[in-house]
Amino acid sequence: MADIDSDSRNPELDSENRDRIVGSLKANNLDAVLCSLPIHVLLLTGYWPVMANSVALFTRDAEMHLLLPEDEAELAHQMSVAQQTTFRPGSLDRITDAKTAITKPLLHLVRGLGLERARIGMELSGAAHATSYLSQYSYETTLEGMIEDKFGGIKIASADQMLRYLESIKTSMQMEAMRLSCRVASEAYKRARTRWQAGMTEAMVAETFRGSYSEQALDPKVLRSVAYFFCMSGENSVKAAAAYARTRRRQIQQGDIVMIHCNSNVDGYWTDITRTYVCGELNAKQRQMSGAIKEARLAALAAISPGARAADVDRAAREVLNQHGFGDAFKHATGHGVGFSAANHNAVPRIHPKSQDTLEVGMTFNIEPAIYLEDYGGMRHCDVVSVTKNGAEVLSAF
Amino acid sequence: MADIDSDSRNPELDSENRDRIVGSLKANNLDAVLCSLPIHVLLLTGYWPVMANSVALFTRDAEMHLLLPEDEAELAHQMSVAQQTTFRPGSLDRITDAKTAITKPLLHLVRGLGLERARIGMELSGAAHATSYLSQYSYETTLEGMIEDKFGGIKIASADQMLRYLESIKTSMQMEAMRLSCRVASEAYKRARTRWQAGMTEAMVAETFRGSYSEQALDPKVLRSVAYFFCMSGENSVKAAAAYARTRRRQIQQGDIVMIHCNSNVDGYWTDITRTYVCGELNAKQRQMSGAIKEARLAALAAISPGARAADVDRAAREVLNQHGFGDAFKHATGHGVGFSAANHNAVPRIHPKSQDTLEVGMTFNIEPAIYLEDYGGMRHCDVVSVTKNGAEVLSAF
Repeated sequence: MADIDSDSRNPELDSENRDRIVGSLKANNLDAVLCSLPIHVLLLTGYWPVMANSVALFTRDAEMHLLLPEDEAELAHQMSVAQQTTFRPGSLDRITDAKTAITKPLLHLVRGLGLERARIGMELSGAAHATSYLSQYSYETTLEGMIEDKFGGIKIASADQMLRYLESIKTSMQMEAMRLSCRVASEAYKRARTRWQAGMTEAMVAETFRGSYSEQALDPKVLRSVAYFFCMSGENSVKAAAAYARTRRRQIQQGDIVMIHCNSNVDGYWTDITRTYVCGELNAKQRQMSGAIKEARLAALAAISPGARAADVDRAAREVLNQHGFGDAFKHATGHGVGFSAANHNAVPRIHPKSQDTLEVGMTFNIEPAIYLEDYGGMRHCDVVSVTKNGAEVLSAF
Repeated sequence: MADIDSDSRNPELDSENRDRIVGSLKANNLDAVLCSLPIHVLLLTGYWPVMANSVALFTRDAEMHLLLPEDEAELAHQMSVAQQTTFRPGSLDRITDAKTAITKPLLHLVRGLGLERARIGMELSGAAHATSYLSQYSYETTLEGMIEDKFGGIKIASADQMLRYLESIKTSMQMEAMRLSCRVASEAYKRARTRWQAGMTEAMVAETFRGSYSEQALDPKVLRSVAYFFCMSGENSVKAAAAYARTRRRQIQQGDIVMIHCNSNVDGYWTDITRTYVCGELNAKQRQMSGAIKEARLAALAAISPGARAADVDRAAREVLNQHGFGDAFKHATGHGVGFSAANHNAVPRIHPKSQDTLEVGMTFNIEPAIYLEDYGGMRHCDVVSVTKNGAEVLSAF
């Protein structure tokens, strides 16, 4: 393998994203938006922070600023064209942390941009957020506090709903990033699906898929990547209906259902993919389950188009499973937004019976019809798809 | 491999932990502490949440309560003896989320415990926190809001400093959990250190160590585990001085320095381990670096005892590296708290030149003397240690 170094990447301005954010700020009567959650920093600046102590500030004049720890500067220069200011959250000279170290540059930036009496949108409401590293900084309420203390004239408003909507629709450049992320994961599945066998534990099978992913992530277009693979087999496959996945020690037996779930990330963009295999030949019941899921998947895909109601996409899949007698065994929604988010059932668009969301070109989400039969087993097929002018593009087509 | 199922675990009350928390609440004039960050829920109840939307409430009467999503109930029953109340953050009947779903049970619990006019400690201040899953719920400011709105008589105070101190010292049961976590990681290193060779990329070497970890994590005492392994070789090993680790594509050459860093977790308890190898025989310079680090490590370990100043432990290591001419190349502190935290340079005790911390029996932290020579390479040796009555116990002794 060659000594590939992708550290020479040159970021480009995503002008489509800039225009969308400016438009949203105006529509929401905000002068600026200020965020520290990694997925929002990525959305606003193109940089996906590591330690989660970076702050992004984006104004309605399209000023894009990034305050970040100095040892992330090299990475940030490869991912973002934002104006960067670094700070030092730690040093040998004194014990300090991000909220102290960022105070001066943040207040300086707010003043420099003339935002002393502005209306600024921030993250105030609870939500699930994909992680960017094994340990993450959280500012809790300290950013609001330092801004309010210093600038009595500033009004802080919730930017949560605006951000959730912005996240849901990908620009052309973001869509390319989604395609790359999904392609790397798809190739990993294609290679690994013949590399496991009866006798292996779930942990070993998951590790096999992960190893395959690592090979694919050597793609020179990938700057940073992380992948989580889970294997749930036999009776454990029923438990995959939960909000989280978990690999156990169970040993794969001939005839077992073997479900492989993956959430992987390339340069900030998440996938959400599941494939279900059987160890050996499918029996009649497994064929019936698998056939119904395939049909439900096709029905959901066919219901996707700009302007379609997300609830109708859910219904399309659910009706097929109902017709096959598996309605009660489809225990969760047909999908949810994927990309900036992973494993977040409330990411827009919610492909859910009660969803009020309407599909728009560029929305990315998963389609995950499933059947979970207590005392027997569970099967799920989960793809990442996007809404195109004419219908749906499956980003994980394999 | 046998079909081992550790799902039959029975949790025990950690009475030492209970007494410590009650004592801390009294000392801090708090009637209760209420937390949602996974490491704090673990500290208060013994349960390490997955999706991070669980809430722990602990009163000065030693009432221990856990509000959690229903699909984590099975796991929680295996890890915690806390009183459990479940809620449903999502369903097919309506689109909702954790902050809505938890409101009623939380307010009911506060009232049931007679805390309507209590002084309650919560997480208010920014800090780095280890993650428990790839996507995590954050309540942001909503928990404070719902309590203050409903109970005008409640006073919310910061519990951050109290929690940081409680985290730093492990009870006997927590120390056993730390030993298990460190043993699993140590065995992984021992097996994997002969499994890599020149020609492999950093990504492949990291994957090799991770695969070895997966084998060790099959230990039947382990309920849940996650591990992050990083490989930084040649000139990339210098970059390991940063606050975060990163594996790249660089191909290992004969003579290269190869640094393997690991943060792994068993049932909530983190490790922080680094070993540095050389591909082939060490040259004179590498021997000099390695020798100085070993000597610095021994000096730091010898300085550890109950009542010792953490700054003196840092100085012991730093002086050795100074004497060898590597003082300027030791760019970070000698260590920081590890266990509930990982990769958090502000976790107590800070083994730092400016630290005001004093070591106590049961404190767990890392000792990571290192030399980072620009244009040459970096070496680090990082162990997890605990303070014992007589000195130090190395939890990652291999």
